[in-house]
Amino acid sequence: MNNFIFQSPTELIFGKGQTDKVGTKISEYGGTNVLFVYGGGSIKESGLYDQIIDSLEDEELNIFELPGVEPNPRIALVRKGIDICEENDIDFILAAGGGSTIDTAKTIAAGFYYEGDPWEMFTGDEDPEEALPVGVVLTLAATGSEMNGNAVISNMETEKKLAIQSPALTPDFSILDPVNTFTVPREHTVFGIVDIASHIYEQYFKHIENTEISDRFAESLLITLREASERVLENPEDYNSRANIMLAATLALNGGVCAHSDIKRTYLCALGKDTSFIVHPIEHEFSAFYDIPHGGGLAILHPNWMEYVMDAGIEKFVQYATRVFDVDPTGKSDEDVAREGIVRTREWFNKMGAPTKLSDYNIDDTRFEEIAERLTADGPIGSFKELDKYDLIEIFKMS
Amino acid sequence: MNNFIFQSPTELIFGKGQTDKVGTKISEYGGTNVLFVYGGGSIKESGLYDQIIDSLEDEELNIFELPGVEPNPRIALVRKGIDICEENDIDFILAAGGGSTIDTAKTIAAGFYYEGDPWEMFTGDEDPEEALPVGVVLTLAATGSEMNGNAVISNMETEKKLAIQSPALTPDFSILDPVNTFTVPREHTVFGIVDIASHIYEQYFKHIENTEISDRFAESLLITLREASERVLENPEDYNSRANIMLAATLALNGGVCAHSDIKRTYLCALGKDTSFIVHPIEHEFSAFYDIPHGGGLAILHPNWMEYVMDAGIEKFVQYATRVFDVDPTGKSDEDVAREGIVRTREWFNKMGAPTKLSDYNIDDTRFEEIAERLTADGPIGSFKELDKYDLIEIFKMS
Repeated sequence: MNNFIFQSPTELIFGKGQTDKVGTKISEYGGTNVLFVYGGGSIKESGLYDQIIDSLEDEELNIFELPGVEPNPRIALVRKGIDICEENDIDFILAAGGGSTIDTAKTIAAGFYYEGDPWEMFTGDEDPEEALPVGVVLTLAATGSEMNGNAVISNMETEKKLAIQSPALTPDFSILDPVNTFTVPREHTVFGIVDIASHIYEQYFKHIENTEISDRFAESLLITLREASERVLENPEDYNSRANIMLAATLALNGGVCAHSDIKRTYLCALGKDTSFIVHPIEHEFSAFYDIPHGGGLAILHPNWMEYVMDAGIEKFVQYATRVFDVDPTGKSDEDVAREGIVRTREWFNKMGAPTKLSDYNIDDTRFEEIAERLTADGPIGSFKELDKYDLIEIFKMS
Repeated sequence: MNNFIFQSPTELIFGKGQTDKVGTKISEYGGTNVLFVYGGGSIKESGLYDQIIDSLEDEELNIFELPGVEPNPRIALVRKGIDICEENDIDFILAAGGGSTIDTAKTIAAGFYYEGDPWEMFTGDEDPEEALPVGVVLTLAATGSEMNGNAVISNMETEKKLAIQSPALTPDFSILDPVNTFTVPREHTVFGIVDIASHIYEQYFKHIENTEISDRFAESLLITLREASERVLENPEDYNSRANIMLAATLALNGGVCAHSDIKRTYLCALGKDTSFIVHPIEHEFSAFYDIPHGGGLAILHPNWMEYVMDAGIEKFVQYATRVFDVDPTGKSDEDVAREGIVRTREWFNKMGAPTKLSDYNIDDTRFEEIAERLTADGPIGSFKELDKYDLIEIFKMS
């Protein structure tokens, strides 16, 4: 087990009927002039927008709105948000939405204190140290952004999708009412589930030994997710399935790391492990080039990555297959058991309706080399198995 | 799944060699005049005392010492600590030790702001709202006090052992170096393991449905604990076993509740459940009357409680037996499987050398009725199965 620092201070307010607390919570955390960040019309259609505005007005908070967050959220909107903060003495940022909205809010919160253009926080080599307080009303179970210090933003001019990671970005509170996810369309529910699973895989497949607790926590979430995903696709308004998926999302990428500091901060499911990710950065390149849904890209890439790296640590894949999918190892070779676990993973994603091939998004091999080169610009990547440019192209071809 | 609030802000600094950070961490959290609370000579013998003093002196902190914390820590020492704080403008309290030391430090921290005698915090009906900042260097894996808002203190005059629970008591940081537990004597290692298991049982055996994640997290910790306990008793200096036990202790009772508030705060292993404890309060009465080790009392009482309440929810005991002890259910009745899980629990405790009978502590039935009456003064207790005075006496007789 490696040394680590773990801290996850966000106040998690979980359950039905909790949304009405948003106004009093903002007051409690010292907010008066609130920037309310959200996406498109979905929170207006569902009534959530009105509910939040009512709660904020009950507390006599001054509300400034920033709608228009898109999937793969843009740095341009962040700049606009920072301008609003500066012009209106904003002292609290509220995000109502999923990861894109929360990440936009976090980046505005940190960008407010950053002296240069906020995109420089993503391309530079220092972690943001200060940010306005952020609160969340979550509407999509996926990124875990509601209880960690990460934010991912896209710059369409440079075709880059990059992350900042710092404890300063951790939300003060997050309200998780599973009912707010009842109306999430099937496709986004599925992409969310794939994203959650992928976060867990990124932490699970490591070579560090004696990490029983983080391994078993990861398996706990994967089993719960697998079981709940079947029920929720049959009945999108099944409260307990939505609740378990929402909680799994939050715990799957919980706590936080520092992108540039030497301090080995970590996540709940990576306690004692290294926190490097591999399939996420690969997918980010595809999203940046083609603007495809993050969860869709992950569903395609993750099983193929598993297959390609399996031989670098077959025992971990056997553990995964037997514990998460109850694969019976009797009379089978380790390789067969491991492969069965990967097959079951692919089946799980496909059965939910996730895409299986890059061609589902009309992506051909034209830019494979360019993408692989960008990813390996500083040398091979990946801690489970080191992957160079040619390895990556191989995985892309499999996809 | 029930609604809940979960928050666990303590900065966990985990791993070998981390103790030297204590001075800089205290400075980081704003401390200058430090009350250093510890127990007897063990930290002096191990060299930990010198190591901490050096680290504090490197930061030029003003050190005031309060040694003499005993097991089942006393309110009298808390009063003494508060006096030192008031006389010396203490702005940070450092606890180096196990649960008794940490709980003493927390109670001093809250008592400093409390207007009356600190024991009134335990007998009153309001949760402490303010406390001095507290840091921890942990030397015993057991109570989880290093990352929750609980403190248990004994008053020998009134033969009472009572708890306060409030987010205000949560430590700011806790340094967990497994090496600091290498020298813990076998008996205390075992009592610690039993205490950890008991904390998990208290949260695990509930009737609330659809709590897959907290159930599986609890099972994760129990399996890890069971496996590591075997290895550590063979080799007390096995780093990875000590590390897993230490981390299990912290995660087994992590976060915190409010004793008196309506806000449903909870622990990591009780997400979505109720947080009432049953065997702990029973054991506290025995400890208050007879001053027996907490872990010893729990080892005796817990399996008997299990046996007595099993029929109130046999499925949960079947789940426990099959998942935690790999009991094979083929061809067995639910009752047999459940009973096998309880037998295995008792065997686990006994094999480690924990006591099995109250008579091991020379406790006879003289005061059974008095203890049972005190516990049921406000009516029956227990959420898995309601227990009245006669039920409790029955469990005591089994013990």
